[in-house]
Amino acid sequence: MPRFALKIEYDGGPFAGWQAQADQPSVQQAVETALARLDAGFAAGARIAAAGRTDAGVHASGQVAHADLQRDWDPFRLAEALNFHLKPAPVAILTTARVPDDFHARFSATERRYLFRLVARRAPVTHLKGQVWQVLNPLDTAAMRTAAGHLVGCHDFTTFRSSICQAQSPVKTLDEIQIDEVEIPHGREYRFSLRARSFLHNQVRSIVGTLERVGARFWPPERVVEALAARNRAACGPVCPPHGLYLMGVGYREDPFATSASAETSGL
Amino acid sequence: MPRFALKIEYDGGPFAGWQAQADQPSVQQAVETALARLDAGFAAGARIAAAGRTDAGVHASGQVAHADLQRDWDPFRLAEALNFHLKPAPVAILTTARVPDDFHARFSATERRYLFRLVARRAPVTHLKGQVWQVLNPLDTAAMRTAAGHLVGCHDFTTFRSSICQAQSPVKTLDEIQIDEVEIPHGREYRFSLRARSFLHNQVRSIVGTLERVGARFWPPERVVEALAARNRAACGPVCPPHGLYLMGVGYREDPFATSASAETSGL
Repeated sequence: MPRFALKIEYDGGPFAGWQAQADQPSVQQAVETALARLDAGFAAGARIAAAGRTDAGVHASGQVAHADLQRDWDPFRLAEALNFHLKPAPVAILTTARVPDDFHARFSATERRYLFRLVARRAPVTHLKGQVWQVLNPLDTAAMRTAAGHLVGCHDFTTFRSSICQAQSPVKTLDEIQIDEVEIPHGREYRFSLRARSFLHNQVRSIVGTLERVGARFWPPERVVEALAARNRAACGPVCPPHGLYLMGVGYREDPFATSASAETSGL
Repeated sequence: MPRFALKIEYDGGPFAGWQAQADQPSVQQAVETALARLDAGFAAGARIAAAGRTDAGVHASGQVAHADLQRDWDPFRLAEALNFHLKPAPVAILTTARVPDDFHARFSATERRYLFRLVARRAPVTHLKGQVWQVLNPLDTAAMRTAAGHLVGCHDFTTFRSSICQAQSPVKTLDEIQIDEVEIPHGREYRFSLRARSFLHNQVRSIVGTLERVGARFWPPERVVEALAARNRAACGPVCPPHGLYLMGVGYREDPFATSASAETSGL
């Protein structure tokens, strides 16, 4: 059976997360239901696997999943057909590609990139509602960058993982935390970009929640060093809400979508 | 009675436009209802006046209105109180300022700035749903810029105004059309920024709808010169949908909000 990789964008707001659950709307279920409209295997209950099982409310601009289909679809037509059947759910197939049988969206992934959007403004956000976490007062970006620097590298991240995290080891290598500041009408947006081979459960939200405490000058940057060294969940800052978080992209040794550019423009 | 200027941001989606209408939700009504919670004059039916009476579905990041209140409010507290009462409507008071009695949000305005957001992508937008106009294929930005250049300056814009436009004269001076191109995942966003002392009804949406025809290579840029010269509504391209349009700001001889910076940060 030909295997396809799907690059998926979604608004996490209406979903109980990526993973299919009984009686709860999930992104996985939405994509599988669309696949079932055009493939007998999925109509009979086949499943897809994704690189990152995002939590309830978390968004994606570059989630990757793979699906084994019974027919050898033209990648462009497959994306178009799925987008047709996904309507009106806020889920879109950005592109698809035919991949080798040993490609696995989750196990072949060598990098995940997340973005967290935090807005500091007195007036409530309107256009960005449900897309950012809002605080009222501006943050100290330099202090947050100093604190973030202490977290980059290979560490035991026990402090920054959820108590229900199922990863075997709390030791992870965080390759990058970049913090960009953008002006918005009467406020400021802080964009936290994090990159690693893989993340622990709630790791990004735990880190950003902690950095916000530093930015608000409730914590000196050095307290983050102590929190990390404590290897204790109780030493973490507050976990920030899911609706500011975006899975931006997934890296593989070879980009499965590198050859799909032609498919994408074939309809132009 | 002390007069206040309000700078207002809103998502136009749920509203039948700025202007209050019987039995239809309007932004004006939402703001006046909030004012009625804290001012006896508004509780008794006082009204506000705005710089731009945006159509149904049109958004704003810098609408300006003025209100005469019975009490001399601290501007920061006034904004906070209004935002409290506006919840959960997607309307926010960005800032307020005490202004002279002869300040009029509409008649004192010397400039309006609009932004139109157009996304070209095969896959439906998810996070930007209701915030941009989507087309499927990339546009020719250079051709659109050439065409836009023909519209800048003082012209009879009869071709580009709604048949129900109430302006006395169709002659307007368009000071600027800037077109920026931004990459988005698997697509492109085109941002049209237009600036003029004032605009005719539907002028921005008529111009952008016409420029899109040029960008899609259905119209040569020169056809825009002919359309303008025709002074005939029938020569216009299709009017584009309202949900990509934003009233970004209003200019006055003196910025009424110039002194409100302290009010804004007084709560920090």
